[in-house]
Amino acid sequence: MIAVYGMAVSGNCWKAAQILRLTGRPFRWIETDGNTGGTRTPEFLAINPNGKVPVVVLDDGTVITESNAILLHFAEATAWLPPPGLARTGVMEWLFFEQYSHEPYIAVARNLTSYAKTAAQFPERMAQCMERGAQALAVMERRLGAHDWLTGNGPTVADLALFAYTHVANEGGFDLSVYPGVAAWVARLTAVPGMVGLARAG
Amino acid sequence: MIAVYGMAVSGNCWKAAQILRLTGRPFRWIETDGNTGGTRTPEFLAINPNGKVPVVVLDDGTVITESNAILLHFAEATAWLPPPGLARTGVMEWLFFEQYSHEPYIAVARNLTSYAKTAAQFPERMAQCMERGAQALAVMERRLGAHDWLTGNGPTVADLALFAYTHVANEGGFDLSVYPGVAAWVARLTAVPGMVGLARAG
Repeated sequence: MIAVYGMAVSGNCWKAAQILRLTGRPFRWIETDGNTGGTRTPEFLAINPNGKVPVVVLDDGTVITESNAILLHFAEATAWLPPPGLARTGVMEWLFFEQYSHEPYIAVARNLTSYAKTAAQFPERMAQCMERGAQALAVMERRLGAHDWLTGNGPTVADLALFAYTHVANEGGFDLSVYPGVAAWVARLTAVPGMVGLARAG
Repeated sequence: MIAVYGMAVSGNCWKAAQILRLTGRPFRWIETDGNTGGTRTPEFLAINPNGKVPVVVLDDGTVITESNAILLHFAEATAWLPPPGLARTGVMEWLFFEQYSHEPYIAVARNLTSYAKTAAQFPERMAQCMERGAQALAVMERRLGAHDWLTGNGPTVADLALFAYTHVANEGGFDLSVYPGVAAWVARLTAVPGMVGLARAG
């Protein structure tokens, strides 16, 4: 059975579980906490030298790292990923946007605020997260204020990737009511059959 | 003719020009300096709301953003990108690694050191760049110490993406002689017909 090494509260790890659920592949989850050294053990580094979760291990031992590479791998030949061409390129643009311009601010603000609870110790970092995170949400709003999905006419892995941290952005101090198109899109995705949201901070 | 908005000293922008050269597509280059506000004008933001270069504009006006999405778009159905399946997934893993774990440290160290020349003003940021950049190079060395290419048996867009800032990493203070597999790979890629290196700091 497919194995997923992940941390339950991580949006990046949620992506792996969600695409496996949506494409009907059973998997077992191995909780691995990056905040307490679980991704830095010799055993884990032998699986992923980059020391990050999620990691997927296939039945034959093949390892797949990087949350968006995992999304793409399991979405191939399904409705979650258009065939090669401009439609697929549109998906790719959002996947790289997510990892470079969205996650480093919105996920980090959430972690510092609601999980590590060290936001007060890092005021400059938090200020940068709030500014750049707001920019990323504004880029999304520009699209989602006028369209149902980030690209094309139906949900794709681009929507899943951006949903991961956007639907819990309030835990980082972002108010999605300022972005009505984004908020409506979160509700639209939440209603897709098979979608399971991320655990919330207690 | 394909138009590329880019900054000549940027490794991300170099990727767009290089894949167009390697796949035989003529293009015109529109120099656009992100450091002096060129990516924040209303005209540019109408093309890319995220305010970043490179941007490619096709003959029909279609816009493609994100350097690694541009690499993938033009590499489709060429030897630079394997067909869908595990071989392509291996390429994807390195592309996301590049944008998340490599570029934010190695490109930023280079910019602060050799272009903005403000490294002395940001000691904590530089220290983080040097630590995380060294980690990224170590991950590459683990693969390239024993293999010619990052994935598979020939060069792919994964190699192009990582080459962009690795071959000029010395401008950020990284010594590639510590990573002999990486250094040999840089030489191997440089020798590929059609490869043109990035402009160096004066």
